[in-house]
Amino acid sequence: MISEIICVGTELLTGDTVNTNASYIAKRLMGLSSGCLWQSVVGDNPSRLSESILTALKRSELIVLTGGLGPTEDDLTKETAAELLVLPLYEDAKSLNDISSYFASKGREMPNMNKKQALIPKGAVILENEIGTAPGILLDFELLKSQGKFYSQYKAKYLILLPGPPREMKMMWESAAEPYLKAKITDLALVSHYMTVFGIGESAAAERLGDIVSGANPTVSPYAKNGSVTFRITANGKSEKDAEAKCLPVIEKMKELLGDSVVGTDVGSMAEVAVSELKGAGKTVALAESCTGGLIAKKLTDVSGASEVFKMGAVTYSNEIKSLLLSVGEDTLCKFGAVSEQTALEMCKGAAELSGDDFGVSVTGIAGPLGGSEEKPVGTVWIGIYSKKTGKHSAKRYLFGHGRVNERDYIRELTAETALWELIKTVREEN
Amino acid sequence: MISEIICVGTELLTGDTVNTNASYIAKRLMGLSSGCLWQSVVGDNPSRLSESILTALKRSELIVLTGGLGPTEDDLTKETAAELLVLPLYEDAKSLNDISSYFASKGREMPNMNKKQALIPKGAVILENEIGTAPGILLDFELLKSQGKFYSQYKAKYLILLPGPPREMKMMWESAAEPYLKAKITDLALVSHYMTVFGIGESAAAERLGDIVSGANPTVSPYAKNGSVTFRITANGKSEKDAEAKCLPVIEKMKELLGDSVVGTDVGSMAEVAVSELKGAGKTVALAESCTGGLIAKKLTDVSGASEVFKMGAVTYSNEIKSLLLSVGEDTLCKFGAVSEQTALEMCKGAAELSGDDFGVSVTGIAGPLGGSEEKPVGTVWIGIYSKKTGKHSAKRYLFGHGRVNERDYIRELTAETALWELIKTVREEN
Repeated sequence: MISEIICVGTELLTGDTVNTNASYIAKRLMGLSSGCLWQSVVGDNPSRLSESILTALKRSELIVLTGGLGPTEDDLTKETAAELLVLPLYEDAKSLNDISSYFASKGREMPNMNKKQALIPKGAVILENEIGTAPGILLDFELLKSQGKFYSQYKAKYLILLPGPPREMKMMWESAAEPYLKAKITDLALVSHYMTVFGIGESAAAERLGDIVSGANPTVSPYAKNGSVTFRITANGKSEKDAEAKCLPVIEKMKELLGDSVVGTDVGSMAEVAVSELKGAGKTVALAESCTGGLIAKKLTDVSGASEVFKMGAVTYSNEIKSLLLSVGEDTLCKFGAVSEQTALEMCKGAAELSGDDFGVSVTGIAGPLGGSEEKPVGTVWIGIYSKKTGKHSAKRYLFGHGRVNERDYIRELTAETALWELIKTVREEN
Repeated sequence: MISEIICVGTELLTGDTVNTNASYIAKRLMGLSSGCLWQSVVGDNPSRLSESILTALKRSELIVLTGGLGPTEDDLTKETAAELLVLPLYEDAKSLNDISSYFASKGREMPNMNKKQALIPKGAVILENEIGTAPGILLDFELLKSQGKFYSQYKAKYLILLPGPPREMKMMWESAAEPYLKAKITDLALVSHYMTVFGIGESAAAERLGDIVSGANPTVSPYAKNGSVTFRITANGKSEKDAEAKCLPVIEKMKELLGDSVVGTDVGSMAEVAVSELKGAGKTVALAESCTGGLIAKKLTDVSGASEVFKMGAVTYSNEIKSLLLSVGEDTLCKFGAVSEQTALEMCKGAAELSGDDFGVSVTGIAGPLGGSEEKPVGTVWIGIYSKKTGKHSAKRYLFGHGRVNERDYIRELTAETALWELIKTVREEN
């Protein structure tokens, strides 16, 4: 089934908002074995919006729109789609009641303008909004046909209108739209796996894989992000099992070729892998962060259940605090500076000893844009790892972002990911 | 000037990558007074890609493409555009040299496949890639005309091809593409300002503003995100000064109507405001984070120069560590639990007293999905603020995410933003 996503909203065209809705829906469509071939963004402009929907109706079978279901005059998605398909709008009593209950639950009266959100195109399946006001709309062309509405000029089988706010959109997709579609669609099974490697460039990894990257079933395609490269391995087959059987030998071969650069297959974020490795080993980690300023702790605690393996993170953003919390020697700081191997070593050990954890991870560096020098340019980072079991601590020096300025976020991100990777490798080695 | 963005890449269609390139370029186009009317995403498929570029050539004056300039066979953007415009490709000696130098600087030999990146459509302006291998391509239709290439069937004036990796794309846009365009374009001046409010819903804020929201010049449009609502105020005029003069009285009126919900105008993130308020007051803050797990510290240290006002963040993810680092009484934890007013109060005071900072901010709550109870459902959060000067500490209880599960990220994000906002208000009150 060919699908298409249209996101409506001026805030997307101006770049004020990043279009996370498109990537979310795209991912879910993959799971429905429906290949998304187009995504587009249009503003709340009736003629351009109408043109976009029309183009989609002609070329795609499943069309998902997000945005433009709000209460203001600007919001035109529903009205435009209904007009294009010549479906009259009616005020749905239950939807109106849901909207006023929503406001009542917040102790507020429903503003008059919100009434518009209860207007529904005739013949539509209404998708309930559990956490917002705009109901969603699902037009099933088979269903419309049974009601005497024929659209033989269009390829479309489903047109789905979802609200723009990501939380509402996701909740509605998962609780209403996707279950509806799943019950209807039976098609070729598509299976995807994801293998992530770290510390090796995209083309170097691709060259190691050779022919595998140009295979047809499964296809293997890489994308690089913040130091890691993830290969998506996608196969199709008569059944899920059949598609799966085509993926597996390729994955095994890839593991062999990529060796210990492999973070894992279908593993989620680096922090998720770190939490799971620590859990598996029954170990805990303490963090001592300088230049990353809490980013590594944030990443670990993004993972639900991180509290089993992570109890303490110290963000030590000055020399005094490094000494106070982590017992870094004042002479060390004075002699070698905060960004040095010695400081990194004392930080990771100090953190683990303070909290009693099995591992200590420290980072200290210069994220920029200020603070660099010839000897220690912006991007210079020391990452230290201490292990209680072996009593060893070691630190490595990195230069992230090619010593360029204005890459603070990038340097911090790479530092955090690399620190987590170093931790993962240490846990694996000791286990 | 009407502009359009086309992002090329299967990883976007599958949702594996969020399209941050589109929002970045869109924002920069706004700054060039060029309204972006369409954004689209297509895969590395020659016929669909060709169709998308063709549509754009017909309807837009400035077309920016990202992606598909890589070294693999999949990468077809340059080839497709060149074919469509009947421009032969030649191997550019300088580009080839740049690419092999890039590999040499990393101590590696240039893989053979990268040679393809040095192929340039005849008549193109080459945009140098300072941090990657693929050069960018700028086709200036005026310039092509002077070389005997006429395209009267198209509306296009500029077609720009940029690499897909965001860092390379941004660097190239800012250092090469934008300066080129700026020198060419003279148009109506467009000025935008952004006013952010917090703790008041989008429709409530819009209702307070009344007629202002439906104004034509300036236009005022809201977008809501993570508890804050930002109004973009955009005016056009003969000159920048003229456009500015149209914005200012509206901004003043908005400030009046929105009162102390206003975070600021053109202020950046909540963390940036917090850092700047603290700097202005000559004060410092210590953090004690439980459920946000370092997110607030991460946000503060996203801001370059945060070290002036922030030295210590304690991520205390267990009761023991709360007692050890922040001197939270074991009896407090035992009697009231970690998620309680009493614990929040002792945490913020404990943090500030440990580090000697002027303010202490604490958060303790249940981010979920596990750990909720009837009395303290998921989303229950206490935020505490301590001030050394007044000696006062207070804590407020919140219920974020309507007590729903599966909203861990959202709860943490809202908690962090709200804690920063509480800090900002306290600093403002005391100053």
